[in-house]
Amino acid sequence: MRTTVLLSGGLDSAVLAARLHHDGHLVSALSCDYGQRHRRELAAAAAVAASLGVSHRVINLSGVAAAMDPDSSALLGSAAVPHGHYADDNMAVTVVPGRNLLMLAAAAAVASSRGDEVVAIAAHAGDHPVYPDCRTEFLDAAQAAVALGTPTLDVVYPFAHFSKADIVAEGARLGVPFGLTWSCYEGGAVHCGRCGTCVERAEAFAVAGVEDPTLYADSAYAREVTGR
Amino acid sequence: MRTTVLLSGGLDSAVLAARLHHDGHLVSALSCDYGQRHRRELAAAAAVAASLGVSHRVINLSGVAAAMDPDSSALLGSAAVPHGHYADDNMAVTVVPGRNLLMLAAAAAVASSRGDEVVAIAAHAGDHPVYPDCRTEFLDAAQAAVALGTPTLDVVYPFAHFSKADIVAEGARLGVPFGLTWSCYEGGAVHCGRCGTCVERAEAFAVAGVEDPTLYADSAYAREVTGR
Repeated sequence: MRTTVLLSGGLDSAVLAARLHHDGHLVSALSCDYGQRHRRELAAAAAVAASLGVSHRVINLSGVAAAMDPDSSALLGSAAVPHGHYADDNMAVTVVPGRNLLMLAAAAAVASSRGDEVVAIAAHAGDHPVYPDCRTEFLDAAQAAVALGTPTLDVVYPFAHFSKADIVAEGARLGVPFGLTWSCYEGGAVHCGRCGTCVERAEAFAVAGVEDPTLYADSAYAREVTGR
Repeated sequence: MRTTVLLSGGLDSAVLAARLHHDGHLVSALSCDYGQRHRRELAAAAAVAASLGVSHRVINLSGVAAAMDPDSSALLGSAAVPHGHYADDNMAVTVVPGRNLLMLAAAAAVASSRGDEVVAIAAHAGDHPVYPDCRTEFLDAAQAAVALGTPTLDVVYPFAHFSKADIVAEGARLGVPFGLTWSCYEGGAVHCGRCGTCVERAEAFAVAGVEDPTLYADSAYAREVTGR
């Protein structure tokens, strides 16, 4: 099955890309530029795709972001990215309204125009509490909408029931170069170690018992918050 | 219900906008620039929105079109726009893969970021034969995906079971300025009168018994093809 993967440059989609590549399905990778402040992840996505030897395209969705209210998400505007654990209430400001449907719809348009058969997305269980568009119910509905709108295309989300630690363990088995991936919402020179995605990343390596190659500006914070 | 309408600049969405405005729900209109060759419709959309006194935004989706294979649709590339009736097999080349899901997803992101409650789309029954993403099954699935991904937002498609003639009749009752709208896929100075959407437009006015104010370069062709 000719599969294209939504590759954010983060850890989860890098592992999914590696798995699809290992299974012989991966033909290309798509990243979305939606005006995210952590644009550094786009360079990480390019590096991950290059490490797998698959073509990589960036879909420019900045026109959508430009029409959105920039104050609707801390990932779009200038509001501070909150520190702490994903499960905290303050993480709600990192939701980008409708992001996964937009990325899936854009990927579906591009993939189907190019004759691909499957779009894969690495949404996973750990994202559930704050992000409605990472839940299985949403993914099932989006899969149905894509299949009915572009009948030659399927959407798959094999990590829907994985924890992030499960994904790290899978990546370790596949030899994923974790050091190429980027998670931090701050988008600075190194991972901040304090935002929700940095804390989740560090915790996942600790839980999986896999060495974390990430350089965090604050390497103690995640342990303090999560107790891992 | 604070409603934003997907306003293409064509006849159907102009009538839907007028109906929502008449019912007191319409707060804004959104158009999508997806690199369509008939970009003239965007100016028509602006004129229709201005006639209703609602704000109008164009969402720039040209970055998605840029990543697509331009030969996947006659509306994107340089391939000839086919002449004839929508029901003809040759109209398949006017399908833009995944267009309605992309436009709905983009509108959902923008509308929910701005606190709107409903996105309305004027997809209708007459579009069914060639466009999978105008069918009710697709619209139901897209509605579910939007509601699960952005829980504050609903999608409505009140014309799903209308014929285009029904829409013209509704527009006539509401006093829609049909002359402001643009359908033709060729995007020339006047409507060509020969492409699928021109033929459908002329036929709809004839069936509805409403005077057609459209200036067609070829005003006889639609009658020859449809017998109306």
